[in-house]
Amino acid sequence: MKIAVMGFGTVGSGVYRVLEENKELIAKKAGEEISIKYVLDLREFPGQPVEKVLTHDIQDILNDDEVGAVVEVMGGTGAAYTFAKAALEAGKHVATSNKALIAAKGAELMEIAKAHQVSLLFEASVGGGIPILRPLNVCLTADRILEIMGILNGTTNYILTEMTQKQTAFDVVLKQAQQLGYAEADPTADIEGHDACRKIAILSTLAYGKTAHFEEIPTEGITSITQKDIAYSKEMDCSIKLVGVSRSLPEGISAMVYPMILPNVHPLSGVSGAFNAIFVKGNMLGDTMYYGSGAGSLPTASAVVSDIVDIVRHKNEHIPMDWDTTQKLDILPLDEVPVRAMVRIAAQNQTEAEKEALEIFSGGRIMDLAEADDEFAVLTGEETEASLAEKIAALGQKYEIRNRIRMEAKA
Amino acid sequence: MKIAVMGFGTVGSGVYRVLEENKELIAKKAGEEISIKYVLDLREFPGQPVEKVLTHDIQDILNDDEVGAVVEVMGGTGAAYTFAKAALEAGKHVATSNKALIAAKGAELMEIAKAHQVSLLFEASVGGGIPILRPLNVCLTADRILEIMGILNGTTNYILTEMTQKQTAFDVVLKQAQQLGYAEADPTADIEGHDACRKIAILSTLAYGKTAHFEEIPTEGITSITQKDIAYSKEMDCSIKLVGVSRSLPEGISAMVYPMILPNVHPLSGVSGAFNAIFVKGNMLGDTMYYGSGAGSLPTASAVVSDIVDIVRHKNEHIPMDWDTTQKLDILPLDEVPVRAMVRIAAQNQTEAEKEALEIFSGGRIMDLAEADDEFAVLTGEETEASLAEKIAALGQKYEIRNRIRMEAKA
Repeated sequence: MKIAVMGFGTVGSGVYRVLEENKELIAKKAGEEISIKYVLDLREFPGQPVEKVLTHDIQDILNDDEVGAVVEVMGGTGAAYTFAKAALEAGKHVATSNKALIAAKGAELMEIAKAHQVSLLFEASVGGGIPILRPLNVCLTADRILEIMGILNGTTNYILTEMTQKQTAFDVVLKQAQQLGYAEADPTADIEGHDACRKIAILSTLAYGKTAHFEEIPTEGITSITQKDIAYSKEMDCSIKLVGVSRSLPEGISAMVYPMILPNVHPLSGVSGAFNAIFVKGNMLGDTMYYGSGAGSLPTASAVVSDIVDIVRHKNEHIPMDWDTTQKLDILPLDEVPVRAMVRIAAQNQTEAEKEALEIFSGGRIMDLAEADDEFAVLTGEETEASLAEKIAALGQKYEIRNRIRMEAKA
Repeated sequence: MKIAVMGFGTVGSGVYRVLEENKELIAKKAGEEISIKYVLDLREFPGQPVEKVLTHDIQDILNDDEVGAVVEVMGGTGAAYTFAKAALEAGKHVATSNKALIAAKGAELMEIAKAHQVSLLFEASVGGGIPILRPLNVCLTADRILEIMGILNGTTNYILTEMTQKQTAFDVVLKQAQQLGYAEADPTADIEGHDACRKIAILSTLAYGKTAHFEEIPTEGITSITQKDIAYSKEMDCSIKLVGVSRSLPEGISAMVYPMILPNVHPLSGVSGAFNAIFVKGNMLGDTMYYGSGAGSLPTASAVVSDIVDIVRHKNEHIPMDWDTTQKLDILPLDEVPVRAMVRIAAQNQTEAEKEALEIFSGGRIMDLAEADDEFAVLTGEETEASLAEKIAALGQKYEIRNRIRMEAKA
């Protein structure tokens, strides 16, 4: 099969290299040779091998009947959307690593793919190289998914790991991460959780079979995390991780992104540096976890190429997913979501404040930290997000609330 | 589709329960309802719901054209082999959790399945509920597999975890494990590594596409591991794990089972208790890991039922695997396999013995442990299994060799 690659950036050049270096092996797995007929990019690459297949015109690809599948690795929801849509409408399969595109336009593109009997695959859009969407689609088919919790963003996991191991402040680590290329010049999408939000939206969609709207998923980043917070979590034998969580609760499906205090016995808490991992709990299977490189040229490209292999194996059909694109996934309103948290409080009269905090948070307990003698923390019992916010607001009338971080129920 | 379940033990009753409890969800995933028409078992189950579908005669199943697929969860290679073979020859798909059967007779059964255009699936035979074989088959298709290293046996991982956390001797923990039902009355298959050996044989077969013969895989169990060994490994910030390892080396494919000293930064070292995990390194993908329950009624049954769902989705075809059943996987002779190890040595004149050990193991280093003042350890540089054995034998002429445990190269 001949394919086209749209975008010759980090992932696109990785796809080129994976298909080149593992050519024979991939041909064997796919059942036929896969070769790149076009690479679409606005830039020139003089003297590089890619020059031979370079085009600046999407029409070259759309009008070429030899091109059976298109890889979209441009990113964003502008030209990437227009071109992916046009490729599907031209009867070409599409594989993409673009989480923004799938989170925003996945349902529409999937309907077009179905209508044209071609496939739309996007394994690389979540967890980079980690196989997670195909396992959800073809492996965890005997289970009702009770929970998905993922470390879905390598940049923030790197920052939190460094903060924890080297006891360095957030903005210092962020600057280092930018210098090392682990964080972008504008790090907003990572550190504010927007990237993880799109990924948990995609995971929720596939886990529950209806379209999750990422705009409805409450999202908090890691900018407020301090060394004090980390010190408390260490004292509890826990780690702070930015997680995307989706749960099937009796009340409905919850989905959120926030920093969470996770017990060190939880398999996710050992995931350090730029690695990603997705924890999935099934009602029969129990706990499983999928771990690997969440980003990077070759790991992400490996996942894209595995999609292409799947496409070649099913080249005359639409690969189905358990996703009713006409249905919207109802996400439980934030107020109703059950939650536990650590709330850090500073007060002149600490004894009185602790007493009051325990009255308000019945079922909670007080935690003191030797190195923080001007404050204490209350570890709440189970609250709803609404009651947690109300109680914090009430305490905030009299005392200084320094931070509140959610905790895994088992912590 | 109507199916038959052969064997109503731990896994068989789990399959019954999974199909019952998740009936609707599974029907939706599979595209049609799946119901159990027969359960084959020699025992009676008076008053239990399974009674209605119970048969003692395999012919009932083989002669019933309504039965499209058979689940084999009897275990062993006797009747399980005869019945699975007969089912395939009768044109019925087979899903099995039986690692002994697949490791011993997989190639033959796969050929019969192919000839009759039915599928033979065995996801549950390795890693219990963890999706690993299907991911190898349909996800990691863009990569050359460089290494598979798995904690493949929950019993031994439970024992090693308890020994490490509670500082209890092997035989004490084993007895406790037997009382708790984590270890069998005859624990040989687990503690001597035979179970893990069959599993790494199956993984190697699927990773390299040729039949690995489990009899050729050098296998060591955990019976020689002592608290001293664990103390040394802790001092090195490492853990001792029983692993099945298969590597694609320049010299060929190696496959072995043995206790290994793994650095605590390795993702496998955090896998504790009865959990299993499989670490897979691809030449493009880098490191990935798959974690979950390696045994237990419902997790294992979940994997078996996911095979049945796959079978129903492809009911008129043979689901192919990248496995040339006519080819035998050549396994690198033990002598040629590269290895590093910790060798514990007791000597009257320790200074002289240390000097001699370092002369013999050039590139090695000496390690002393405060609580073991009558011995020392040498951490070898890279050796071959042959040179390691020779050098240990040479030192053994003069000194007492207390143990030798292999170490991950990166330790």
